[in-house]
Amino acid sequence: MTSFSALSHLECPRCGATHDADQIIGLCPCGSPLLARYDLPSVTVTPASLADRAPNLWRYHELLPVRSPDNVVTLGEGMTPLLPLPRYGAELGVDRLLMKDEGLIPTGTFKARGAAVGVSRAYEVGVRKIAMPTNGNAGSAWAAYAARAGMEALIAMPIAAPEICRREVTVVGGRLQLIDGLIGDAAAYVREQPGYFDASTLKEPYRIEGKKTMGLEIAEQLNWELPDVIVYPTGGGVGIIGIWKGLLELRELGWISGPLPRLVAVQSTGCAPIVRAWEKGLPESEPWPDAKTIAFGITVPKALGDFLVLQAIAETDGCAVAVDDEDILAEQHKVARMEGSFICPEGAANFAAIRTLRESGWIRADDQVVALNTGAGLKYPETVPLPS
Amino acid sequence: MTSFSALSHLECPRCGATHDADQIIGLCPCGSPLLARYDLPSVTVTPASLADRAPNLWRYHELLPVRSPDNVVTLGEGMTPLLPLPRYGAELGVDRLLMKDEGLIPTGTFKARGAAVGVSRAYEVGVRKIAMPTNGNAGSAWAAYAARAGMEALIAMPIAAPEICRREVTVVGGRLQLIDGLIGDAAAYVREQPGYFDASTLKEPYRIEGKKTMGLEIAEQLNWELPDVIVYPTGGGVGIIGIWKGLLELRELGWISGPLPRLVAVQSTGCAPIVRAWEKGLPESEPWPDAKTIAFGITVPKALGDFLVLQAIAETDGCAVAVDDEDILAEQHKVARMEGSFICPEGAANFAAIRTLRESGWIRADDQVVALNTGAGLKYPETVPLPS
Repeated sequence: MTSFSALSHLECPRCGATHDADQIIGLCPCGSPLLARYDLPSVTVTPASLADRAPNLWRYHELLPVRSPDNVVTLGEGMTPLLPLPRYGAELGVDRLLMKDEGLIPTGTFKARGAAVGVSRAYEVGVRKIAMPTNGNAGSAWAAYAARAGMEALIAMPIAAPEICRREVTVVGGRLQLIDGLIGDAAAYVREQPGYFDASTLKEPYRIEGKKTMGLEIAEQLNWELPDVIVYPTGGGVGIIGIWKGLLELRELGWISGPLPRLVAVQSTGCAPIVRAWEKGLPESEPWPDAKTIAFGITVPKALGDFLVLQAIAETDGCAVAVDDEDILAEQHKVARMEGSFICPEGAANFAAIRTLRESGWIRADDQVVALNTGAGLKYPETVPLPS
Repeated sequence: MTSFSALSHLECPRCGATHDADQIIGLCPCGSPLLARYDLPSVTVTPASLADRAPNLWRYHELLPVRSPDNVVTLGEGMTPLLPLPRYGAELGVDRLLMKDEGLIPTGTFKARGAAVGVSRAYEVGVRKIAMPTNGNAGSAWAAYAARAGMEALIAMPIAAPEICRREVTVVGGRLQLIDGLIGDAAAYVREQPGYFDASTLKEPYRIEGKKTMGLEIAEQLNWELPDVIVYPTGGGVGIIGIWKGLLELRELGWISGPLPRLVAVQSTGCAPIVRAWEKGLPESEPWPDAKTIAFGITVPKALGDFLVLQAIAETDGCAVAVDDEDILAEQHKVARMEGSFICPEGAANFAAIRTLRESGWIRADDQVVALNTGAGLKYPETVPLPS
């Protein structure tokens, strides 16, 4: 009988050290994020047998780190729609354009995936109090799942984060600390709080496991045939690293084959450290000064996992692209008018990038392109006009 | 070979007349809403064979009125989670409490179901311009699906409707008319607009077909065993009528058996025409003067389908209950803190009703109770505090 989870151990992608997964652990002593590794040959479930499982991310439980179903903390997250955008795609010159809509998930953004798996696994290894810095949406999600688990959550958030996120953290009983600064300043605050487990992006190993389910779902929804390109708005980068990791695991399982999709990291010209590192051919990014963009979720001047993002792009023949705020808003409105979907600015940044990449020829007219809309436009009411 | 849809004809539940379904049609000439009827014996799909279909409401296409898959207008709606609420249920004294979370759907409310099916079918029979009065969320949904279909939408909405709905209608290119009054005043405005198909609640026959999929999904998610009680916040009443209709169809198909769940219509004490009619034993409601409640979506002083709601309640041994606004908000906050879910006030009204009905003994401790959270709390930011 297969175990509920095939989790084997934790591995450092920088120094190669391995660590016991069944302990409370953050970074590798070398300072790098840790990645969960699985005993994939022990996995006996098949793509066909998945069909009978409920349409949420826990359908992939063998590839997730939670060892007992009793520890699963869920609000029904996952298996979000993968929608064709025929009218808008034609306008962009990309007929086979698809959008994975992560607005249809608890708390309204893809952050719910990392929170569901991260909180579940933290609970399983014995954590009862978490703290984290956030640009808003991750805090909303982690506070919600912590409440569902009966855990305490301390969320540190820049004052400029979306207003709704403050309300979300508070209504579920989370402790909110507003920070007059950026996410790095919030991280500094969190480091000084004793007694809390630091659940910052990539400082614990399991958030990424939740995020990777976006990749698993895209593969399953396309009947295990991969698209040519996946485009992702990149702040901390866990989403794009997670998708890459998930697809590599599927390939090792033999569920998919051939080259992986070219992964595209999209940033704003107001905060584009990874794009700059990519263009310079550097293995890591440098902190971006005076970071500012309407796509607040990707305002991350220096990401802990930048080197993994750059590696994911390089190894899949992908690229990194920066787009202007005004183009982001213009595309957000076009998607809404042409396809009826009110997406978030971070999601709209993808489409500005796709337009650029199509114009340059990097995306071909017959490429199948998947764009991740990372959240519901409902969380960003101020990005669209209020008629009176 | 089964047809994509088993739609047969339209039937008047008041005078019994039948009408051709393949025409543009609103009410029965007798003034009653029309109901879609299906050739159920022709349906060959089985519950087991549903498992392979995508997790959205179109999995039930034989029981939906759209004849061709080419006319399906979808944003990925349906198969929302049915979540156990163990901690909050224990506090309410209802251990087997479940919440169907309609916040995880395009435009963030259950209105997407009616809009997806209503717009698709309207398009199929040749409508290209729709108009409708709304308390907000239905307008957001119909405008979105109309945009997706390439149709024109005119949405008339009270000024007091949630602000986000104005933005949603406008961003997808809908024409918005703000009304200084209640939904009835908006309806009067719509009636005067030439050239538009009037898609008001129950004035066209297909919105209810989308709503009934909530009932189909509950049955499927409980493995075709029905709960004891289903609790629904009731404004226009299409949701509760739809659930009832859907379950009756499933029983006729033989997919479920035994008595239907007791259906509970929940209203606010600030607008409780159906509760009053129920208590008086009347077959129809009387217009409620000075209607006002925080649960704005159920501010409907006189519903066109009130007689059907009362019939659904009576025939399932259900009831109608009114709850106070302060209790609604108190339950909304309790659900959030105890289960991590930020629900809408209309959804919270259910829980205030469940508390009342449990205290009176009408709901028993071992009853399995399903409450419909009709929308995401994200659309009602002002119902929770903004910390600073």
